[in-house]
Amino acid sequence: MASALRLLPSTATRLHFSRRLPFSTASSLLSPPSKAVIYDQHGPPDQVLRVVDVPPVELGERDVCVKMLAAPINPSDINRVQGVYPVRPPLPAAVAGYEGVAQVHAVGPAVICPLSPGDWVIPSPPSFGTWQTYIVKPEDVWHKVRDDVPMEYAATVTVNPLTALRMLKDFVELNPGDAIVQNGATSIVGQCVIQLAKVQGIRTINIIRDRPGSEEAKEKLIQLGADEVFTESQLDVKNVKSLLGALPEPALGFNCVGGNAASLILKLLRQGGTMVTYGGMSKKPVTVSTSSFIFKDLSLRGFWLQKWMNSDKSEECRTMVDYLLGLVKEDKLKYEMELTPFSEFGMALDKALGKHGSQPKQVLRF
Amino acid sequence: MASALRLLPSTATRLHFSRRLPFSTASSLLSPPSKAVIYDQHGPPDQVLRVVDVPPVELGERDVCVKMLAAPINPSDINRVQGVYPVRPPLPAAVAGYEGVAQVHAVGPAVICPLSPGDWVIPSPPSFGTWQTYIVKPEDVWHKVRDDVPMEYAATVTVNPLTALRMLKDFVELNPGDAIVQNGATSIVGQCVIQLAKVQGIRTINIIRDRPGSEEAKEKLIQLGADEVFTESQLDVKNVKSLLGALPEPALGFNCVGGNAASLILKLLRQGGTMVTYGGMSKKPVTVSTSSFIFKDLSLRGFWLQKWMNSDKSEECRTMVDYLLGLVKEDKLKYEMELTPFSEFGMALDKALGKHGSQPKQVLRF
Repeated sequence: MASALRLLPSTATRLHFSRRLPFSTASSLLSPPSKAVIYDQHGPPDQVLRVVDVPPVELGERDVCVKMLAAPINPSDINRVQGVYPVRPPLPAAVAGYEGVAQVHAVGPAVICPLSPGDWVIPSPPSFGTWQTYIVKPEDVWHKVRDDVPMEYAATVTVNPLTALRMLKDFVELNPGDAIVQNGATSIVGQCVIQLAKVQGIRTINIIRDRPGSEEAKEKLIQLGADEVFTESQLDVKNVKSLLGALPEPALGFNCVGGNAASLILKLLRQGGTMVTYGGMSKKPVTVSTSSFIFKDLSLRGFWLQKWMNSDKSEECRTMVDYLLGLVKEDKLKYEMELTPFSEFGMALDKALGKHGSQPKQVLRF
Repeated sequence: MASALRLLPSTATRLHFSRRLPFSTASSLLSPPSKAVIYDQHGPPDQVLRVVDVPPVELGERDVCVKMLAAPINPSDINRVQGVYPVRPPLPAAVAGYEGVAQVHAVGPAVICPLSPGDWVIPSPPSFGTWQTYIVKPEDVWHKVRDDVPMEYAATVTVNPLTALRMLKDFVELNPGDAIVQNGATSIVGQCVIQLAKVQGIRTINIIRDRPGSEEAKEKLIQLGADEVFTESQLDVKNVKSLLGALPEPALGFNCVGGNAASLILKLLRQGGTMVTYGGMSKKPVTVSTSSFIFKDLSLRGFWLQKWMNSDKSEECRTMVDYLLGLVKEDKLKYEMELTPFSEFGMALDKALGKHGSQPKQVLRF
């Protein structure tokens, strides 16, 4: 279990430092034994991930021990395990997972933030290692959140909804009545964009793939508040803007697909518009004509939540998480998820990897 | 010659209006008869352009009649005649040409700006119709410029050098010691970028095509002040940044080529860098990976001088033109041109169209 001890290096290291407040290791608190999903090398997640037992860990005086309630399997979690994501936990014995919600189990003697056993907390900004049953981390990692929403929303509020919220704020000043356009509209970020835009009075033009069931997908997005939903092939017309009807030409577009789906956004954007790329589900690059830059004056940017959060935005991040969970409570923000018991991690992973066809977002329930 | 009269509609129209100052058409000034290059329809320039005689035109009281000295054949002039440029003079009887230098021939009686016969002037911002021997336009069109530089520089100072100067100013704040990267470095804008950057202490990394004579082209750019010059194939290596030596990674790139030459700029740019597209000589689009946007945080923008000048920048435009001609006078800004007599317009046009292989920029001398 030597490797398992390395799972919590910050806590282990912390014990060697002298503390401002009196603290005796003799009387120190211990976390319960835990189970964690770890990987020692990068590779296919269904090959390199394994569930291990982690022995109890001593709490530093300002540490908080939490019992995880729920944590999602996001595509970026998969990419980190594969080794293709730029920011990853160090190997070996990396604990997978990046966001989730937990319940406070115990606090170190010098913890000064108002956290009590039973409180719901999320790591905010998110941090590595949420796929384990108990976690010990310093108090400042944890942000107390409301516990009157379904736990799967508290578990997933940061990575996807916050991306949607930031992208609506950070690139173009939008006013009520303005329109935006996005592809990949059925993704969770896409669904959040529709609902968060609606709260702000912003109209959404949504592009989805041509596929069996696209009519039902359209109907779902309309129910969420989408103003227009088109399949890619519907937009394969010369005068694409004639399809917009009374909607204004969008000044802002969100691309998480690439290839043709990105080109359609560029076609729909108004003069001087901005397209923000935050994903590349088609694995195809974005292709842009010279005249789009020169004569149409389009700007192309990128968004990466992890970079935004690294830039000293933790307070703002927490404020926005609270706002988003408030919308969840008011039934203004929802998206489909499936809670799967942690004991069935292998099944949840297979679903997240697409081995069982299109499946709802998998959220591990501990 | 009915159509020729339509060449100067603003002047013709002006004569019908009553004036604040006393003005008698009986005593009005007439321009000399003129020759102009006109086109009645869009198409291949060597087919639709023709030189016509234009009869004398009456000067309005605030008009200035100038005798053109020199005017370049720019690629955008060609594109306007072809009908593929978004902003073009109305047909029929459009006079070609957009910039140039002239000498004041006569001024209307109410002209209040300090213009005297013999002064050198340029239309600033540039305006349509410079390929004619005499032009009558209102005084506020004309900007007096120094006459102690070669006329071909005064004739060409706006479209290319000003593009280079604006692009160095408008996108990224550069400090001495910073680096920029550009493709199409042998173009006139490219040569101006090298020299204007050097004046500001900014280093330039330059990309040119692989072709016979590329060594001489490199040497010429080095003479102008280029810090590094690479052919595209030289940059076709895995660790392209290792080629930069002591130069900092560039924060700003200029693309006038597209295709692979644009991808090389994206590779060379530093994290968070900006690529500005102002041309597409390869006629290939710009292709960008998803990770360039998300993880490398690149921004892609466009620049079009005509849009910039339309946004109420005429004073700033004139100040910068004066600055640029000052650099010409100090021998800090130069580029290759060939003066061709207006009487040999057909030859100059053929050269500009590339019918005689690579040729210097053609400047008509009237």
